[in-house]
Amino acid sequence: MSKVPTRADAVQLDRLDRLAAYRARFSLPADVCYLDGNSLGALPRGTSARLHQVIEQQWGHDLIRSWNAHGWIDLPQRIGAALAPLVGASADEIIVCDSVSVNLFKLLSAALRRNDPRKVILTEASNFPTDVYVAQGLVRTGVSAAELRVVPRTELECNLDEHVAVLLLTHVDYQSAAAHDIRRLTDQAHRAGALVLWDLSHSVGAMPLSLADDQVDFAVGCGYKYLCGGPGAPAFAFVAQRHLPQLESALVGWMGHQQPFAFAIDYRPADGIDRLLCGTPPILSMMALEVGVQLIAEIGITAIREKSQALTEFFRQCVEPWLAESGLRWGSPLNPTQRGSHLSLHHPAAHAIVQALIAQRVIGDFRAPDLVRLGFAAPYVSFVDVWEAADRLREMMRTGSYDQPQYHVRAKVT
Amino acid sequence: MSKVPTRADAVQLDRLDRLAAYRARFSLPADVCYLDGNSLGALPRGTSARLHQVIEQQWGHDLIRSWNAHGWIDLPQRIGAALAPLVGASADEIIVCDSVSVNLFKLLSAALRRNDPRKVILTEASNFPTDVYVAQGLVRTGVSAAELRVVPRTELECNLDEHVAVLLLTHVDYQSAAAHDIRRLTDQAHRAGALVLWDLSHSVGAMPLSLADDQVDFAVGCGYKYLCGGPGAPAFAFVAQRHLPQLESALVGWMGHQQPFAFAIDYRPADGIDRLLCGTPPILSMMALEVGVQLIAEIGITAIREKSQALTEFFRQCVEPWLAESGLRWGSPLNPTQRGSHLSLHHPAAHAIVQALIAQRVIGDFRAPDLVRLGFAAPYVSFVDVWEAADRLREMMRTGSYDQPQYHVRAKVT
Repeated sequence: MSKVPTRADAVQLDRLDRLAAYRARFSLPADVCYLDGNSLGALPRGTSARLHQVIEQQWGHDLIRSWNAHGWIDLPQRIGAALAPLVGASADEIIVCDSVSVNLFKLLSAALRRNDPRKVILTEASNFPTDVYVAQGLVRTGVSAAELRVVPRTELECNLDEHVAVLLLTHVDYQSAAAHDIRRLTDQAHRAGALVLWDLSHSVGAMPLSLADDQVDFAVGCGYKYLCGGPGAPAFAFVAQRHLPQLESALVGWMGHQQPFAFAIDYRPADGIDRLLCGTPPILSMMALEVGVQLIAEIGITAIREKSQALTEFFRQCVEPWLAESGLRWGSPLNPTQRGSHLSLHHPAAHAIVQALIAQRVIGDFRAPDLVRLGFAAPYVSFVDVWEAADRLREMMRTGSYDQPQYHVRAKVT
Repeated sequence: MSKVPTRADAVQLDRLDRLAAYRARFSLPADVCYLDGNSLGALPRGTSARLHQVIEQQWGHDLIRSWNAHGWIDLPQRIGAALAPLVGASADEIIVCDSVSVNLFKLLSAALRRNDPRKVILTEASNFPTDVYVAQGLVRTGVSAAELRVVPRTELECNLDEHVAVLLLTHVDYQSAAAHDIRRLTDQAHRAGALVLWDLSHSVGAMPLSLADDQVDFAVGCGYKYLCGGPGAPAFAFVAQRHLPQLESALVGWMGHQQPFAFAIDYRPADGIDRLLCGTPPILSMMALEVGVQLIAEIGITAIREKSQALTEFFRQCVEPWLAESGLRWGSPLNPTQRGSHLSLHHPAAHAIVQALIAQRVIGDFRAPDLVRLGFAAPYVSFVDVWEAADRLREMMRTGSYDQPQYHVRAKVT
């Protein structure tokens, strides 16, 4: 297909799509092209019934006994085990709890301690802000006397010197979708004596990962994007087995104690990954996340990656013929193996364009200062969705209809 | 009523109870005496419908737009505002997020920084373990070069010397239910130049608090006990207005930034209490908590305290006549103004007694090494519940029927 694709082409691609049947496993409004699964994953159909059961039967009826009877106490490990094959790790290297930011703090403080006396956290200026904020908070308040070095993406490698304790990077960039080569950078960091901490928020559930094979030391990732765990779903933390016995985080709590219910006065960390637990995890949100993770694992991460690459390439084919004259400009790598599962387009009126698209039932998002960001979550996005989105965008750019006052109004979250 | 109360007395007390009608607002199994609301609050009847709406309508249908359209982004402040009257604070001094442990870490690190160059965290040996663990983690990993001093309860006051930066205490003891005098200890700490951080987990929602009047500096509290927010519900953090402008926590994240969606590379804390936010909060669990907080606020904290004192005193009347010969021994203050809303009883076979009570549909809990702990959550516990619990306990202690092998088996959570 080198010509401009038609709607019939999209229909045909959907017919051939082996994942097409999974769309029915998600609850999505019929008339919406939802291209924001990279920000908030769609709702799995099973979630509502599961939460109803957890609330009415487990909490309401079985009450406190549910901690044992319904395995609430094992949820962080159970969801971790379900996640493990998606990231290429062992079940006992992953735990689900807290938020990405909180888990970053735990692992960053632990990595610094593990690589003492080195003090430098190295990261890139285009990293997701919370990753940098967490490091700044830790440095400013004197944890481990650490030091933060923020450099342009192109200068990461030449900054891997003998002072770097931890290389802190996000795998897939939240703006451009550019994917770092985890294996290569991890290897380079190790050669320089540094440890690596990868934020997988924009890749987990969208593409296969191989943390063990790539010798990754530490990682965190988000539950509410491609894992479809629901708004603000808890996050996960990965620690390679070789680091677990000595791992010491600055942030600990009773759920990470070797015997939480012995109520001893001295903190003794649990033997394995459990030591990363801190307070009591939010069970309702955890249960919703479990449904999402199970569904994504069932669909299969290799098939998801294959389809998401096909979706993003199809979108490119649809828009390429008129893109230059529209004023839109690619903000993502053009090689599908070098990017994640979303595409970004620069335009000075990006905010208004996104708002106008939403008014036309094409939901993407705006990222400051000038990005239209569109996510292609393979489990529920169809080729017709993609064609429709491209078609409405084309019409909008042709007529300039996005340039209306109401589309310039900024909401609190944009 | 100085004679031994009869079941008819209990029925009569329920008839006179102004809060009796609220029991129907909770979903509880009909044949259960639930005396463990101090560990997991009962399910408000409104929660399930609320979560169904949040999941199906807000997440499933309105998708990412719900952050603005349904106020997800304001939930931490909104629940905080609903909580404020329950603790005697202003709406802009409370925020709901993360767990008690994580919030303790934030405030402890901030308090140390605020009271620099003092270094000592003073707490008592009988504090809830996670409070001590959080302090230990912070000290061991070198945050602010702090030092931890753990002393017996009776030696707290004489340890308030010129080195103490923060006095870290739990208001109502999780074992004995003994309540500290917040106002007096806060005042003493201030005279000694220390700041105070109160953990209100076992008092919020059970008794009125007056954080502002008592000049409290910092506080945290639990959402899943008396606030009926659901298993592992998020926690809250309180910071007195006078400390907010300079407050610096070691643990920060994008949700606490002045402009989270500007995605700036430098962390600039939000002006007020919002700066205590870190990662994205778990919206489903937050929504369930909001239902609980609204219901407790509607019932009224003064009425709740009054009834819970009547319930615990009624229990004492029921068991006092046979207590001594049963081998059970009070582990709680006998003066109801000096304790929270639960009662503890020592017995060498406490674990088996609790298990046998549960088998007889009286749900309390065991706390190591030898405590039978019974909670009296006024919104849904009736005087008949209390009478039945006392009656079954009496019979069990008379016959020794708790001493059976199955009651000695320890589950993971006990």
